[in-house]
Amino acid sequence: MSDTIFSKIIRGEIPAQKIYEDKAVIAIMDIAPLSEGHVLVIPKEPAEALDQLSDDAAAAVGRVLPRVVRAVQKVTGIADCNVLQNNGEAAGQAVPHVHFHVIPKPAGGGLRKEWKPVEVSKDRLAELGRAMARLL
Amino acid sequence: MSDTIFSKIIRGEIPAQKIYEDKAVIAIMDIAPLSEGHVLVIPKEPAEALDQLSDDAAAAVGRVLPRVVRAVQKVTGIADCNVLQNNGEAAGQAVPHVHFHVIPKPAGGGLRKEWKPVEVSKDRLAELGRAMARLL
Repeated sequence: MSDTIFSKIIRGEIPAQKIYEDKAVIAIMDIAPLSEGHVLVIPKEPAEALDQLSDDAAAAVGRVLPRVVRAVQKVTGIADCNVLQNNGEAAGQAVPHVHFHVIPKPAGGGLRKEWKPVEVSKDRLAELGRAMARLL
Repeated sequence: MSDTIFSKIIRGEIPAQKIYEDKAVIAIMDIAPLSEGHVLVIPKEPAEALDQLSDDAAAAVGRVLPRVVRAVQKVTGIADCNVLQNNGEAAGQAVPHVHFHVIPKPAGGGLRKEWKPVEVSKDRLAELGRAMARLL
């Protein structure tokens, strides 16, 4: 496990604009925000990607998301937002320590994305689903 | 609270390719996937957006995300993925019942996004952060 900027922030070795902390989670302002009010919610457990995070740490992050979203809404005055968590460089992950972005969606700003569904047959979807269900 | 397609799936009134279920959460295959293996993780609690979801329901969703990501990775053979949760129409939310997308990121496919940070001064960032911290 590499030591990242987030581990250093969690240990207080690097300053950050912290907005929330409990025993398992911190939330800070993103210093390169996609829109004003962009926040990062970060488990203290140093997992590189979500598949390596413990269930308890993932639950702790999930638990604080609604209240962080409410704070972002109140402070920015923007109701809509995207919550995004990228796993791996190809997916856009820049720091190899799990983090959830909460990104306000002002008109014309925030996270810009394309939504282009691909063709997957009903049979293939069922096959994929059955294979996943066997693992869960 | 409007009755959505997800409430109907949760009640078993509409079929879906279910891959996981516990008392608080279901996970199903997205029928309009951005890539093969695109899954939805859905709290049973019928909150329209994340700010309205209870802490316990949000924790329950968070808890299952790592294992869903691992199942998606194993079945698709693709390590990278994006976890995305949209709040509000402007943010791209199509069904008014909280849901987290787990979207595999194959080369050239999956979720396409632009990452264009905006200028926010250090003072403004601190001001936003302090205002949020007071609410958390």
